Amino acid sequence: VWIGDDAAVVATPAQAWMVLASDSVVAGVHSDLALTSLSDLGWKAVAVCVSDLAAMGARPAHAVVAVSGGRADEVELLYEGVAAAAETFGVAVVGGDLTESPTLVVNVTVTGTCAGYPVLRSGARPGDGIWVTGPLGASAAGLRLLRDGSGAQAPLLVAAHARPRPLLAEGEAARRAGATAMIDVSDGFTADLAHVLDASGVGCVVDGVPVAPGATISDALSGGEDFELVWCVRPDVDVPGRFAQLGLRPPMR
Amino acid sequence: VWIGDDAAVVATPAQAWMVLASDSVVAGVHSDLALTSLSDLGWKAVAVCVSDLAAMGARPAHAVVAVSGGRADEVELLYEGVAAAAETFGVAVVGGDLTESPTLVVNVTVTGTCAGYPVLRSGARPGDGIWVTGPLGASAAGLRLLRDGSGAQAPLLVAAHARPRPLLAEGEAARRAGATAMIDVSDGFTADLAHVLDASGVGCVVDGVPVAPGATISDALSGGEDFELVWCVRPDVDVPGRFAQLGLRPPMR
Repeated sequence: VWIGDDAAVVATPAQAWMVLASDSVVAGVHSDLALTSLSDLGWKAVAVCVSDLAAMGARPAHAVVAVSGGRADEVELLYEGVAAAAETFGVAVVGGDLTESPTLVVNVTVTGTCAGYPVLRSGARPGDGIWVTGPLGASAAGLRLLRDGSGAQAPLLVAAHARPRPLLAEGEAARRAGATAMIDVSDGFTADLAHVLDASGVGCVVDGVPVAPGATISDALSGGEDFELVWCVRPDVDVPGRFAQLGLRPPMR
Repeated sequence: VWIGDDAAVVATPAQAWMVLASDSVVAGVHSDLALTSLSDLGWKAVAVCVSDLAAMGARPAHAVVAVSGGRADEVELLYEGVAAAAETFGVAVVGGDLTESPTLVVNVTVTGTCAGYPVLRSGARPGDGIWVTGPLGASAAGLRLLRDGSGAQAPLLVAAHARPRPLLAEGEAARRAGATAMIDVSDGFTADLAHVLDASGVGCVVDGVPVAPGATISDALSGGEDFELVWCVRPDVDVPGRFAQLGLRPPMR
């Protein structure tokens, strides 16, 4: 890996397929800097993008980080969060860009690799079971507590909002288990499940959505940024025990 | 190539080395929307990034485009320029992101490939000749004319500013000719040449910088965004005739 020129040089991965995701996080739009730190903003920018790879069963390889706006000391704090997230998720930051801007915008683009073909949104079939990697709503609950000024009472919920973790191992396990479709809960469970159903041309009725302790059912259904993975698989597949199956299946055409 | 999910799926290139560049263009900072169109802004965002690859002797493969801000109709105009540039430069736009923002920021990240090892800034050696792909200063002159309201008198200079073209074929030819170091003129000739000299640990004296018709010597030396390539090569190399050699070499330690 060569870093320091206008473009980074990296070794081409051995796997047949690469994935490429890009996400921007805008201060004041995606993160209220009165409630979360610049370091958390940097962390989140990386997490959001890496989570797109987790939702395909892919692993991140390299990232480039483009920061527009911010004073030098603010950018430094932001990079602290970027570096912490990159180390935690196993992605190498190999370059990026730094520009002036009246608004602080952090763009992260990640390349990833996949031992098999990545899981898309569009492969769910009638009869599939629908699974989720864990309870939902923690991030929305954490944000509400921060807004109420009572974040100190529930540090786990606040952490779920401020320092989300993409579920790379879970996404890979789901892909290996034969996931037919997968998505990460970024917009909110109902919205994201609808993306999968629309892309796959199927429908379903769901109940028994697991709700995180301290979250409401509304947090779980509509709150975004949980980054839990929702995925579908043929009903005869023996799914690893750490996943939660939703109450009603199958998807119906 | 699969497009439409949160991440794009692309075939891994056959070449051993990949390059990765990311650049953001900010409305009001890098482009004055009173002088250039949104379509030109989109074109420039792609061109700036692809030029980083040209300066390594690499070829672009895939791009992701993240747009923050802008109304829907503005974003549509912007994408027209993105698409036109992508088609012209031979890069496939495979995904991206669209977010709200008070400031319009366009980030383009491009992956590229290289048949050999990419040319870095840091390889210039004492005795090398310094070459440039063409005359400099057209972009700065075009911007000045636009500001004066007299752009119609010099459409070629205005085009050099509004619709710059990364010199992909020239960069590849320089790499094949044995370029020891290379950079694109984005900040300005003197600044960019200094980047090469600093990275390579050498010095030089330059004269005979080719000035574009209609540009001043100041445009040529300090004006940015020409995207001509400045490169160094051993003095005994037979350089293709379309390159201009600078007056005084060699770089000196």
